[in-house]
Amino acid sequence: METMRVIKVKQSVLANNDARADALRKKLKEKGVFLVNVMSSPGSGKTTLLVDLINRLKDKLKIGVIEADMDATVDAATVESKTGVKTIQLHTSGECHLDAKMVDEGMDFLGDDGLDLVFLENIGNLVCPAEFDTGATLKFVILSIPEGDDKPLKYPLMFRKGDIFVFTKMDAKIVFDFDVNKAEKSILKLNPDAKFFPVSVKANQGVDVLADYLVDAVKKYQGK
Amino acid sequence: METMRVIKVKQSVLANNDARADALRKKLKEKGVFLVNVMSSPGSGKTTLLVDLINRLKDKLKIGVIEADMDATVDAATVESKTGVKTIQLHTSGECHLDAKMVDEGMDFLGDDGLDLVFLENIGNLVCPAEFDTGATLKFVILSIPEGDDKPLKYPLMFRKGDIFVFTKMDAKIVFDFDVNKAEKSILKLNPDAKFFPVSVKANQGVDVLADYLVDAVKKYQGK
Repeated sequence: METMRVIKVKQSVLANNDARADALRKKLKEKGVFLVNVMSSPGSGKTTLLVDLINRLKDKLKIGVIEADMDATVDAATVESKTGVKTIQLHTSGECHLDAKMVDEGMDFLGDDGLDLVFLENIGNLVCPAEFDTGATLKFVILSIPEGDDKPLKYPLMFRKGDIFVFTKMDAKIVFDFDVNKAEKSILKLNPDAKFFPVSVKANQGVDVLADYLVDAVKKYQGK
Repeated sequence: METMRVIKVKQSVLANNDARADALRKKLKEKGVFLVNVMSSPGSGKTTLLVDLINRLKDKLKIGVIEADMDATVDAATVESKTGVKTIQLHTSGECHLDAKMVDEGMDFLGDDGLDLVFLENIGNLVCPAEFDTGATLKFVILSIPEGDDKPLKYPLMFRKGDIFVFTKMDAKIVFDFDVNKAEKSILKLNPDAKFFPVSVKANQGVDVLADYLVDAVKKYQGK
């Protein structure tokens, strides 16, 4: 087997984005708004998890949601109707990721005053979203059991960049050979500070633990 | 719910790519090499399907494989060891898609003389790969049952661009609410010429039908 590397340079785009992301993170910190960037493959169960999580958190924290899609509005409509929290839809016109400028504009559009926690549902994609710092306080990476435990080997940047790794659809383990220990070990090699939350929304397992973790993280961030 | 559109223009990049893709398609046609661009989400079962499909086809057609990954070589090693056909690995250095230039260089690297059929396993991604014509003769889009039947609504460009839609992991229908008719109807709305192949490699179902279709398509293309 032979290997060939294709080289493309996009350093300057990324450097500009990093500066803008840092500025946004500083602004959000001053306002006490905790921003969670939620990334995963298409179909990993991001929206289902968010709806469940928000319904557990909305009495404790004031929450907003920014849904990103290339063109659809299906997720934003679902989240807003099932949780009642304010949700806006960003359309990226074909771009496969969110960058800090889009998120900054989205936060203005959402209106961030008084919000404790904003979930940013990124485009379903394990590649591009990992490259662009959105200014988020915390990065969720969602990996569903049917996708397989080899994904950290294949999309290393995503697994290096994430903070919180949520394994979804744990109830599907009965039909898929997914080795949770193997996945965790692969991720820890890339990212020694990774934290893991195995959940099943369908079986009502583990989302409570993740919700408690977030409440604590937001309080700490806000200095409460 | 409110909606905001982010505008970015990348027309010139795409126009250059289209010209290069057309030139590659013409060159491949002259050589009788049928190039299949295989696209899907991460974890949809692309590699598993290709291994099974190639083992059914390799006595009838001379096959090569171009595996694209951002950095890993795990798929190329798997395909080569399990099928014995010549496989090269393209590393895209963080790019989330293949373009016609990369594929043209990859074909030179693979050495296309005498090949009937080349599978190009694109980066696992439902967004960017749809935007870039690779010069392929035929485009496979793979959608696995656990991803959900709403994916055509959320990634419309991919489902508009594909020719052949393969529903994988059909054996997992016992634990997932995936409505095959609904998915097919959504895709046909975007793409009236779409063809569907439901398969399960694990249960040995449907891959034979897809293999027969490909043998016929390659013969027709080569004028045999």
